[in-house]
Amino acid sequence: MEARFAELLAGYCLEAGPGETVLVEAETPALPLIPPLKRALLARGAYPLIRLVYPGEERDFLLHGGVWLERIPEAEWALYEKADKFLRILSAENPLEGASLDPELALRQRRAWRPLQEIRLRKRWTLTLYPTVGYAVGAGMGTEEFRAYLERALFLDREDPIAAWKALSRFQEALIQRLSRGKELRILAPGTDLTLSVAGRVWVNSDGKRNMSSGEVFTGPVEDSAQGEVRFNLPAFVGGRRVEGVYLRFEGGEVVEARAEVGEDYLLRALATDAGARRLGEVGIGTNFGLTRPTGLILLDEKMGGTVHLALGQSYPETGGKNQSALHWDLVLSLKEGKLLLDGEPLLSEGRFLEG
Amino acid sequence: MEARFAELLAGYCLEAGPGETVLVEAETPALPLIPPLKRALLARGAYPLIRLVYPGEERDFLLHGGVWLERIPEAEWALYEKADKFLRILSAENPLEGASLDPELALRQRRAWRPLQEIRLRKRWTLTLYPTVGYAVGAGMGTEEFRAYLERALFLDREDPIAAWKALSRFQEALIQRLSRGKELRILAPGTDLTLSVAGRVWVNSDGKRNMSSGEVFTGPVEDSAQGEVRFNLPAFVGGRRVEGVYLRFEGGEVVEARAEVGEDYLLRALATDAGARRLGEVGIGTNFGLTRPTGLILLDEKMGGTVHLALGQSYPETGGKNQSALHWDLVLSLKEGKLLLDGEPLLSEGRFLEG
Repeated sequence: MEARFAELLAGYCLEAGPGETVLVEAETPALPLIPPLKRALLARGAYPLIRLVYPGEERDFLLHGGVWLERIPEAEWALYEKADKFLRILSAENPLEGASLDPELALRQRRAWRPLQEIRLRKRWTLTLYPTVGYAVGAGMGTEEFRAYLERALFLDREDPIAAWKALSRFQEALIQRLSRGKELRILAPGTDLTLSVAGRVWVNSDGKRNMSSGEVFTGPVEDSAQGEVRFNLPAFVGGRRVEGVYLRFEGGEVVEARAEVGEDYLLRALATDAGARRLGEVGIGTNFGLTRPTGLILLDEKMGGTVHLALGQSYPETGGKNQSALHWDLVLSLKEGKLLLDGEPLLSEGRFLEG
Repeated sequence: MEARFAELLAGYCLEAGPGETVLVEAETPALPLIPPLKRALLARGAYPLIRLVYPGEERDFLLHGGVWLERIPEAEWALYEKADKFLRILSAENPLEGASLDPELALRQRRAWRPLQEIRLRKRWTLTLYPTVGYAVGAGMGTEEFRAYLERALFLDREDPIAAWKALSRFQEALIQRLSRGKELRILAPGTDLTLSVAGRVWVNSDGKRNMSSGEVFTGPVEDSAQGEVRFNLPAFVGGRRVEGVYLRFEGGEVVEARAEVGEDYLLRALATDAGARRLGEVGIGTNFGLTRPTGLILLDEKMGGTVHLALGQSYPETGGKNQSALHWDLVLSLKEGKLLLDGEPLLSEGRFLEG
């Protein structure tokens, strides 16, 4: 798996080329992927600058970092400015490492270090995930079972993964054609009835360049348009803890009521990050029907065919979205028992796309 | 061991302080040391920027690095310029990883990347070693046995390691007083009769700040003074291979004859690095009698009480040495069956220092 995965990342996702420096960040459980990745990047003439983080390093930093939580070291600044492309490999030994930490610590650090993330967003970047034991346990799967699930999610089980990504890209392009003619989205499901305006916004075809795995189309909803309530029915690991059963009520685009069955303290702190954290920065629709089971991993679950996700906080500027925040938190909702309407016409129903 | 080791490195060796960025480089077998080290540096208000290299990463780079072997990436440049202090932890899974590589590859890369090393040498840096299985095997010891040997070498078996380092420092200071009054060193041993001038040069007290473990005094010999022959009788791992039984003959400071029983190709290539590689940049005397067995690890073996080492190549400017090279290769000679004379008077005889 690792050699093909590395090739997919260096070639299809990052399109690494001569003279470029690619900053690669991963936690040490991703080690089996790193040597083939280094070689795949070097083979393209790129320079791989690899940063491996030990399990618990982020927790150590949040607990003991002191002033550095609010101050970006010059060396980090320089590294982000000089790198041409970025690859972040989610590979937590334990995705719940931060479970007992005060959520304010991570949010404070993220606020202060936001300029670094902005540098990255302005350049070419890919976010991916390596199958660790911790992710497998969190997803309720055996280790090999989860590894095989991820291989399918990455299309590495196909003869020609790149051709498969290109086919998905064409399907999404057609979907975007339909979405671009519409103005209002309405999400209906048990406990959920939310309307959003996407008038004038640009839909993005996420076909595995920035996220790997992928399979979604997304845009930035009009910032003051969200109206109604939503109950997210997929649990997720976020900020090093589990958050489940999030309920939000929106008025004029803003969250006016918020609860969670698990991790409510994290939810409330996240909403208090800054002014933009109470508004939506993204609405996305999952199109990858190879992803069949919730894993708690947003990167995968938000791509599941027949799901919708909404992100609190920062929008992606290329969508026309204008929301600003240090937060960007995707929350996922399965529509197996619901519907997505575009200007009143059903687009998705009971987890399936309807012909347009 | 790890917590005390980390404390020694962050405190005594690096004297890390608020606002400083410390660039830490290690191979992944050093992982058990990294979390306590991160915490020890953060506790002092320093920012630890950690770079873990996977086993074989250097080999991959030399084999597949292409143009990057002769071109320093801007991001690396920026990192070295912005870091305030440097810690390199030797922790090879296999110290013979480069055994079958063309030695020219590593030497070429070292030549081209020399400016980065110069940035480091101008700032505060420490070089240390973590006990790996590979080092233990190479030293002919069991893993736990080697670990205990290193603990003694670091004085971590003492109640107050820092006090022990300070005591060694005072012994070395007295030795330097004697050496500074002299002009000519003569090394006598089976197969060895070499004279060197150290007139006007400054001796440095290496008491565990730059090297940990340590225990040596060193200077830069007058560049054209080395005359005679020397047969190094301790084997060593260097450039990812084993080199043993090196014989050198000097005339007017320059190597005019060179052989080795093992690794002669490496020796000859090293001498051809550049003009300065054929001259001596350093002469040092080991003073650490806690180090009792050769390990093949230069960092340790050159500190063994009763040994002398000579480095081909780059000298340390603070000694008054003027030799310039991309090479700095320490070769070690035990004087158990030999003598070190200072202006004709014996200073070391059969591995022991004589009263001055």
